[in-house]
Amino acid sequence: MVQSNPKISQPQNGLDKLFSPASVAVVGASADPARIGGRPISYLLRAGFKGQIYPVNPNRDTVQGLASYPDLASIPGPVDFAVLSVSAGAIVDAMRACGEKGVRAVVIFSAGFSEMNAQGAALQDEVLTIARHYGIRVLGPNCLGLYNAANGHSPTFTSGLEGAAPPLGRIGLITQSGAYGTHLLSMAKARRLGIGMWVSTGNEADVTTAECLEYLIESPDVDAVGLYMEGIRDPETLIRALNRARALRKPVVVMKVGVSEVGSAAAQSHTASLAGADASVQAVLDQTGAMRARTTEDLLDVLYAASIAAPAKGDKLGILTLSGGAGVLMADAADAEGLSVPPMPAAAVARLLERNPFSAPYNPVDITAHALNDFSLIEENLTAMLDDGGYDLLVAFFTSLTASPVLGPRIQKTLSDLLKSRDLPVALVGQVPDALLQAYEADGIMVFDDPSRAVAALAALAGFQRAFDAVPEDASDLPDLGKIELQPRSYGEDEAKALIQKAGIEILQEVLVQTPEEAGAFAARLGLPVAMKIVSPDIAHKSEVGGVALNLTGQQATQDAARDMLASVAARAPQARISGLLVSPMAGDGVELILGAKRDEVMGMMIMVGLGGVFTEIMQDVALARAPITPGRAEAMLRGLKGAPLLQGARGRPTLDITAAAKAVSRLSVLAEQNAATIESIEINPLLVRETGVVALDALILPRQT
Amino acid sequence: MVQSNPKISQPQNGLDKLFSPASVAVVGASADPARIGGRPISYLLRAGFKGQIYPVNPNRDTVQGLASYPDLASIPGPVDFAVLSVSAGAIVDAMRACGEKGVRAVVIFSAGFSEMNAQGAALQDEVLTIARHYGIRVLGPNCLGLYNAANGHSPTFTSGLEGAAPPLGRIGLITQSGAYGTHLLSMAKARRLGIGMWVSTGNEADVTTAECLEYLIESPDVDAVGLYMEGIRDPETLIRALNRARALRKPVVVMKVGVSEVGSAAAQSHTASLAGADASVQAVLDQTGAMRARTTEDLLDVLYAASIAAPAKGDKLGILTLSGGAGVLMADAADAEGLSVPPMPAAAVARLLERNPFSAPYNPVDITAHALNDFSLIEENLTAMLDDGGYDLLVAFFTSLTASPVLGPRIQKTLSDLLKSRDLPVALVGQVPDALLQAYEADGIMVFDDPSRAVAALAALAGFQRAFDAVPEDASDLPDLGKIELQPRSYGEDEAKALIQKAGIEILQEVLVQTPEEAGAFAARLGLPVAMKIVSPDIAHKSEVGGVALNLTGQQATQDAARDMLASVAARAPQARISGLLVSPMAGDGVELILGAKRDEVMGMMIMVGLGGVFTEIMQDVALARAPITPGRAEAMLRGLKGAPLLQGARGRPTLDITAAAKAVSRLSVLAEQNAATIESIEINPLLVRETGVVALDALILPRQT
Repeated sequence: MVQSNPKISQPQNGLDKLFSPASVAVVGASADPARIGGRPISYLLRAGFKGQIYPVNPNRDTVQGLASYPDLASIPGPVDFAVLSVSAGAIVDAMRACGEKGVRAVVIFSAGFSEMNAQGAALQDEVLTIARHYGIRVLGPNCLGLYNAANGHSPTFTSGLEGAAPPLGRIGLITQSGAYGTHLLSMAKARRLGIGMWVSTGNEADVTTAECLEYLIESPDVDAVGLYMEGIRDPETLIRALNRARALRKPVVVMKVGVSEVGSAAAQSHTASLAGADASVQAVLDQTGAMRARTTEDLLDVLYAASIAAPAKGDKLGILTLSGGAGVLMADAADAEGLSVPPMPAAAVARLLERNPFSAPYNPVDITAHALNDFSLIEENLTAMLDDGGYDLLVAFFTSLTASPVLGPRIQKTLSDLLKSRDLPVALVGQVPDALLQAYEADGIMVFDDPSRAVAALAALAGFQRAFDAVPEDASDLPDLGKIELQPRSYGEDEAKALIQKAGIEILQEVLVQTPEEAGAFAARLGLPVAMKIVSPDIAHKSEVGGVALNLTGQQATQDAARDMLASVAARAPQARISGLLVSPMAGDGVELILGAKRDEVMGMMIMVGLGGVFTEIMQDVALARAPITPGRAEAMLRGLKGAPLLQGARGRPTLDITAAAKAVSRLSVLAEQNAATIESIEINPLLVRETGVVALDALILPRQT
Repeated sequence: MVQSNPKISQPQNGLDKLFSPASVAVVGASADPARIGGRPISYLLRAGFKGQIYPVNPNRDTVQGLASYPDLASIPGPVDFAVLSVSAGAIVDAMRACGEKGVRAVVIFSAGFSEMNAQGAALQDEVLTIARHYGIRVLGPNCLGLYNAANGHSPTFTSGLEGAAPPLGRIGLITQSGAYGTHLLSMAKARRLGIGMWVSTGNEADVTTAECLEYLIESPDVDAVGLYMEGIRDPETLIRALNRARALRKPVVVMKVGVSEVGSAAAQSHTASLAGADASVQAVLDQTGAMRARTTEDLLDVLYAASIAAPAKGDKLGILTLSGGAGVLMADAADAEGLSVPPMPAAAVARLLERNPFSAPYNPVDITAHALNDFSLIEENLTAMLDDGGYDLLVAFFTSLTASPVLGPRIQKTLSDLLKSRDLPVALVGQVPDALLQAYEADGIMVFDDPSRAVAALAALAGFQRAFDAVPEDASDLPDLGKIELQPRSYGEDEAKALIQKAGIEILQEVLVQTPEEAGAFAARLGLPVAMKIVSPDIAHKSEVGGVALNLTGQQATQDAARDMLASVAARAPQARISGLLVSPMAGDGVELILGAKRDEVMGMMIMVGLGGVFTEIMQDVALARAPITPGRAEAMLRGLKGAPLLQGARGRPTLDITAAAKAVSRLSVLAEQNAATIESIEINPLLVRETGVVALDALILPRQT
């Protein structure tokens, strides 16, 4: 796909006429409801669209029972929205006609634009220029359109709406891929998941997935949104929308593909959007409280859970089961999903055991098959869990018992009676006939046949609650570190250190000297063992040219070492310009971190932190976030490293100053982000974390090449 | 659950009469086919059991249309097998009657045995004693029985057989949990997975899951087996059966629950079987080529794949898609599952592009929606992939197109025609109507709606092939390291080192001296820097009592250090018996490994290896296997460590002697396993791996406490 010209400016908003117009024209309307130009009319009629529908077809008087018009200009009333179901070659004329008619939004179904070749990209740019001229928002081209169940607006030809109408519901689904979006819609329909709004964005010449997300999140008709993305066109809007969703406590589940090298290459060839590093995408989702789905089933499971129950208050899972084995399995699943499975209180256990000595009412609360002989056991055990267990979520395993003609309805009624006044997400695992299924779901009880998936869906609800309750990062708390206008030239270590020191990150007290005698004199004045390094904009790896000396004690030894160093560097890097020798006290004991701020091609300035040595080199044990970040988030990143015990005093080690380290990480992120216009990357390697305070021992800064 | 007496010896074999009897008596037969005593008869009749069926019920002349007998003795012919559907209290008498009648195998449905309390465990032991006396194999008690579709033998009351009979098939399913086994059976039936043999083992007083696995693996009616386990009663049989399955190239998928702490505790309370460390179970599954399923859906997906296609020849996946997005998603999934997605050859790409310039035939081979306009594109692209791609597995994404009344059957016919002569596993992803689904499956094409699950199922088939092709470890190649009869006392470091040296693992040349003067003299004689350590059976942590000194140079320094050490130890560990001082040359440069052999309560002697320092302490980067292992497997374990690059010369480090390290790991495993009768654990920490050779610097051995 060829990149369409991004410099044509994009107006914000105006999506109301896209999603909720009062009148729709269908240019290229077909009398055949199975054809691309016929389906939107058929879907609009079936969905009971409340506004005017104007088929445009110069060859017919009526289309699917509606009066047809030869062209847009002939339509008597105003037209908010137009479906352009004509070939790519006819789109420019159709767009001009829309402009003249005062149409505010269009969907372009046709392919043959930027997804094809450079000529198509030029055509797409021409369409966009017309759109900007007239103020028309464009969905597509090369997309399948959208539908909005709330008002019946259905300008789409997706086969996902064929057959029965989709069930009503308050879930929004946004998809870059039309075919995959149709697949998602079909799967959702098969499990009766109510997708109330659905939009396929295609080439995103104008309207992006992120803008659609922003619109859906604000819609009173949408409670939760699923998002399928291959590339990200406007990360700023995406992040704003995700933060807004968190503020409104609306779950967002994101399926972002192109994770692997081969997948990313395929995505790149499929859309022109840059994939960006997947780790950066993940970091942004973590920061904004969105959930990442790895499979289609995950995506739909979480949307299903969100459509039935509110986010969970906490992570304490109660497990009710008729099968000990299933109880064990679900306890394992809970552990893997980060839920806790706290035991029932001893008094309740004693009471339940007295009633049924064959049970194991600990949590998992295993009633055993005795429930078949004495149905009231189900009610008693469940009541005890609800009253005494203090659980935030509940899963109940009844296997095929729920399908029994006799017991099935009794179980449904019991669960419904006991749970209707409770405010906690509940998943039932079992085989459930369709009629009962709808009764369960109406009562806020979700139903699964795979116990692991049930637990994962509950865990997602707990995860949303955690994300919603987390105090959002407040960028206004971050200091203004001032502008630094880097030039496109090499910067030395001394300059890099001066910059990070200005940003409030401690560096070693050090001097740049020009002669061995000055080096010796500084060491004598300091009265401490010193380290000495060559300083040159032309030498990246100092130790390889003999440019590093450590633990030098006293005036003479320092002076001698300086003389040797200058000779060694002169011999091994004769071309290098030498700025001098940097002499500093030895840093002392501690643990070394690596800090880096670096531009991601999509997400912008990212901040990375990891432990030094094998942790970063071999184990890739690093944490990533989009800059800027607060010290609080920085500390969470540090504590989340696998190697964090080294900072926290594991195995008799001293406890180090994580607070100071977090502050340094935050400061570096602020410095980099506030100067993203001229900084490509900054690295502090290492930052020594001591028992008190931290100190940057080396720094490297690369200006942005313009 | 109380442990039943394990000392009552268990005869092998004899399971033929359990799974394939010529005659079946049902003691406690009920005329009501819905009752526990009625279901087996109803199921036997429906399944067309070919042998004799004898209901035993003293109150009726006929039961479900069959002549009924007042007791076993009255039955005219021989009885191979009996269902005991009577209460726990009546089981002892029933068992005696079975013995007198010559019954060879029984299933006991009733609960109230070792799963309940000590009294029940005693009753279970009594049943077992009678069984041994008469030579009767017992399935259960506290189980749901079994069925064998091949001969209609259906002595079970599982509700999983209610409604329609399960589809015919060649999959075996073994489950410890009756309720969960029923759930599995219901889920399998819902997706028409042909479970030909199903057995629920319950308390496993006699017949174990492992024995059932052994039987099913040898059965000509079974191609693949699923196994649901909470505990493992006879690991030797299990391992033998798994190795046999690999030799016969029959896939085995294992769902072993009780992984997490809370799950393991629940499993322990649910069955008396010890859970064992999950890592040991995983190691054994890896070594025997079985696959671990983490969820019910995984288990059924892999069994479904195995029921439709043979294991894949390799790991090269071809991806055919009508949706670019789905192609990206499946490429990601392939990467996550360890499959490769190699590109199509350039010539084929050029040919396909010439034919359809809008396609992206690289792999993923994205035909795009143009397939709708020109159906022959599907055939051409697929043929090119089959002829030129060299793929071992194929996934094809058609979404709802396969459900189209017009195109659906055409796609099915095209795929069938092109694939029927090819010998590779193929998964179709799409919505498929039931009638077409069966046609696909009959042609060896599996069908999924979730593309990630399709790719995972294909990856499982590739995994089985890898396991089947791997050369099994040949224990006969391992050396006989001889018996060492450890006593239940403390062993010193010198003794431990002598034992591992005898096993062929190099230790440092060292002497045990008694005086500072002798220490100094040895250092002088050696002419190298030495290390010195206190030796005492009472001191575990030498450095904590001043019992370690390193890098001592020359006679006097060594002598002085020895004097200080003895004084320090005398002051800080006055009760310790001192064997002397161990003096050795300094070990030199290299990377330190930790090696340990340790008894797992279920799986027996296990061998563990990891890198020293933070890798083992903080990152838990270790590999585990059941002892003994060959040097080949030991090397694979070492190379599989996350920290392996440190051994392999990462970032300018020297390449170390992994071969020698692997030999040492193998030797330690052999030593520990051949002496498992008296060894609880041996540890070498560290083993120093050098550029040439390895050397054990410290060793610790703990005898088994009897």
